[in-house]
Amino acid sequence: MTETVISSATKEVVIGFGRPFVMIGERINPTGRKLLAEEMKAGDFSRVEADAIAQVAAGAQMLDVNAGIPLADEPALLAQAIQLVQSVTDVPLAIDSSIIEALEAGIAVYQGKPLINSVTGENEVLERVLPLVAKAGAAVVAISNDETGISEDPDVRFEVAKKIVSAAADHGIPAHDVVVDPLVMPIGAMGTAGQQVFALVRRLRDELGVNTTCGASNVSFGLPARHAITGTFLAMAMGAGMTSAIMNPMHAEVKTAVMAADVLAGHDRDCAAWIRENRDPNAGEGAGGARRRGGRRRAATA
Amino acid sequence: MTETVISSATKEVVIGFGRPFVMIGERINPTGRKLLAEEMKAGDFSRVEADAIAQVAAGAQMLDVNAGIPLADEPALLAQAIQLVQSVTDVPLAIDSSIIEALEAGIAVYQGKPLINSVTGENEVLERVLPLVAKAGAAVVAISNDETGISEDPDVRFEVAKKIVSAAADHGIPAHDVVVDPLVMPIGAMGTAGQQVFALVRRLRDELGVNTTCGASNVSFGLPARHAITGTFLAMAMGAGMTSAIMNPMHAEVKTAVMAADVLAGHDRDCAAWIRENRDPNAGEGAGGARRRGGRRRAATA
Repeated sequence: MTETVISSATKEVVIGFGRPFVMIGERINPTGRKLLAEEMKAGDFSRVEADAIAQVAAGAQMLDVNAGIPLADEPALLAQAIQLVQSVTDVPLAIDSSIIEALEAGIAVYQGKPLINSVTGENEVLERVLPLVAKAGAAVVAISNDETGISEDPDVRFEVAKKIVSAAADHGIPAHDVVVDPLVMPIGAMGTAGQQVFALVRRLRDELGVNTTCGASNVSFGLPARHAITGTFLAMAMGAGMTSAIMNPMHAEVKTAVMAADVLAGHDRDCAAWIRENRDPNAGEGAGGARRRGGRRRAATA
Repeated sequence: MTETVISSATKEVVIGFGRPFVMIGERINPTGRKLLAEEMKAGDFSRVEADAIAQVAAGAQMLDVNAGIPLADEPALLAQAIQLVQSVTDVPLAIDSSIIEALEAGIAVYQGKPLINSVTGENEVLERVLPLVAKAGAAVVAISNDETGISEDPDVRFEVAKKIVSAAADHGIPAHDVVVDPLVMPIGAMGTAGQQVFALVRRLRDELGVNTTCGASNVSFGLPARHAITGTFLAMAMGAGMTSAIMNPMHAEVKTAVMAADVLAGHDRDCAAWIRENRDPNAGEGAGGARRRGGRRRAATA
């Protein structure tokens, strides 16, 4: 069974077939969050700290950390954010940037074995990122697009993923340390987006034997009641074999769907996590529990 | 593409691959509903009428009608219930009984092409039910158990389904009029129940080319927050290829999951049904809409 081990200084998380799904908190990312971007650029990381703590409390087993802010010193900001997050939580992190110097700065301060997010199938990107990943002994997210863009054909995206896994092996990075992101398009814009991902995840698992992840929220972009779409998407992707996602565990419908899908996939032994989440009035309000007890739902946050 | 056409006097419903999932309302069934059983036995069908209207209003495209009450005249009650339901709704029905005389009485009064629920793989049952189905020109639910009971091995259940499809063909009933129920066990009692069904549905679709259905609520029996489990189960089953279910469309979480899964499977063109359900304040409260608008949830009903 394929297992991708990611760690902090004190904690290991295993992404793997036959295991509970790994929720990677998406919130620490200034893209589309103007206030967070302004604060981080001005050296105020209080919201980063709060988002880290809240996502872990909601059930995130890992956190993604991104500091991509235009005209800012991204390497310095990313390093600072990672140090801060590692000081307030013990979960392993995904170091998220498209800037090689930011990845380097993040890796330099990181304690443990990180997940580097990401490499693509573009030759230039492969040649810049993979040596970094190999040197750090890290795992890496492999996004299945290349110089030609994002193909709508799942077979083409499969070939790109295969190419990345092969290039990683050339750098001494084993396939179990490559977590493929099949790329999730908004279903409102492309009606086949779901089926593409489900088919691709199944092939990636059966034929390449790799773990998978995705930016889950993108699937519901532009639709009403979008958290129900995102949650249902994740459940179906888990049914097809997806093993992790970058997502928001603070959205009750999304977290509930993931926990229920773990039950149904047989990955929540004796339904223990489900029963704990939904029986204990002191448990987090993230999953079905809050709803079952008839509480008023919190307003959805984007 | 396999298509099972079921009809009332005025309306056709098609269960099929590549089409929206067909929700068959489960409520008109006195099993476990003491009050309904007592009322029906005493000739009071007001609750049957109310349940028929409410389920169709909530989105049921078909209704299952069962009158299985101990020590009652089931054939007479079932015929009466069917006539009443057909007089207040126009959706096609599943005529549900394990008593051959009740199926006969139901078929005799039914207007249209019904779904007969059900036949099993037991030889005696096959020889009694299939001639009825053939004579009525009906479709039939085929439950994948036989004289040896319900196997935990999906391969055995597949073979039972195959035997029923073959026996149906011997009676002149085409495979597209056999809707296989893979049998859904409570996940709380059997952790592999979900995976068994998903694997079986995929084989039934790919190898036998038949439509599928199930009694969905059973999967969450005994668990807290059970409607979230049932809804997520249906979404994953739809991802595996299931095309209909006998379920309760009045449970918001269940209906929302089915509608979201139709979007993600590419069966809700331009997300039209989803957007209508979740944008129009006058639409039914069954799906995500009521929740998105922050309303207090209704208490769950069993």
